[in-house]
Amino acid sequence: MAIPAQERGRVSTPQDASTTPRPRGRGRRPADEVRADVLATVGQLMLTEGIAELTFERVARLAGVSKTTLYKWWPSRGALALDGYFHAVENTLAFDDTVDVREDLRHQLHSFADVMTTPGGRALLQLIGESQTDHDLASAYRALYSSGRRELAYQRLRHAQRDGQIRDEVDVRVLVDQLWGAVYHRLLIRDEPVTPAFLDALVDNLFDGIAPR
Amino acid sequence: MAIPAQERGRVSTPQDASTTPRPRGRGRRPADEVRADVLATVGQLMLTEGIAELTFERVARLAGVSKTTLYKWWPSRGALALDGYFHAVENTLAFDDTVDVREDLRHQLHSFADVMTTPGGRALLQLIGESQTDHDLASAYRALYSSGRRELAYQRLRHAQRDGQIRDEVDVRVLVDQLWGAVYHRLLIRDEPVTPAFLDALVDNLFDGIAPR
Repeated sequence: MAIPAQERGRVSTPQDASTTPRPRGRGRRPADEVRADVLATVGQLMLTEGIAELTFERVARLAGVSKTTLYKWWPSRGALALDGYFHAVENTLAFDDTVDVREDLRHQLHSFADVMTTPGGRALLQLIGESQTDHDLASAYRALYSSGRRELAYQRLRHAQRDGQIRDEVDVRVLVDQLWGAVYHRLLIRDEPVTPAFLDALVDNLFDGIAPR
Repeated sequence: MAIPAQERGRVSTPQDASTTPRPRGRGRRPADEVRADVLATVGQLMLTEGIAELTFERVARLAGVSKTTLYKWWPSRGALALDGYFHAVENTLAFDDTVDVREDLRHQLHSFADVMTTPGGRALLQLIGESQTDHDLASAYRALYSSGRRELAYQRLRHAQRDGQIRDEVDVRVLVDQLWGAVYHRLLIRDEPVTPAFLDALVDNLFDGIAPR
């Protein structure tokens, strides 16, 4: 059985024996493992609690790293929250890649709408809100969350285009705004609800077209 | 020639002569005229300056009304700003109603994107941002801006549906999110720019459909 990522870094290495042992071997964990631990901790906090109680202090304690390390990697609480959240939802929001892109998109949109009702999803809306007046947060939002999500959607849509399910002349970047962007619109300005029928209509309108045939 | 709305209320009425004259006859203006004056003042400030310097104090002075009156009608600065902005952009964002709904929508979307680059448009994004954590502002946003804009779009789209330019089974409410909502998405999360080609593609994707024909 594989050693869980959280534990792996704590196994003593030969060097540990000859030097002053560090508590729980912290300083010896490779940076990428420490980073993965922090992201897992933050992601879990975001999904279950949102951002209100997410502080560098608490993350440092829970992930067993120093605050200095956290500040070195993430310039702000928002950046830390967004990076953790991106990784926490990566599997939930992964695209199916079957022969039916419409069904794959529909399925992903339903998962997306579900995750947006979690404390993490609500925190995301709050960060979009704050980023309207906080330029650093807006940059962090793009760099650590939205551009990555866009890229994953582009990949799936371009694959559908290569498969002949979306016409060649369509700019798939626009589809991201007409699918997920439309959902964000209803979440950020709550005139109309996000329902399963709404999500299905987003896909149907684009693939079938709305003009008489 | 008609008397401008701002002046009309200041013309003396017979009662004025027999009572202590009020400065510039303020107290005598019918409420709907005072209200229209205030909205015009606020709308102008929003379009040219945005919301940063928009205070009850300043609006009261510029529109020649008491702060008490303003507070009676608008519970917050955000509500006042949104009501003024709605009226300020009403003509610019009015829909054409020709035989070609695609062209009418395209034209309106270009006007909308233009107005969103003004200080007023940027203030709108800021208010959407603040409304993520301010429930009263979110209610004011819906009541005084977005639900009214939605209704005007629904009217134009339903007309197109009656004319047979949009299929009967299409829920036109979803189209609002796939047209203007998609633009808001690019304005609120600035991964991709709002270009003329983007605006045209929004309409084309929906009317032509994106699947091979």
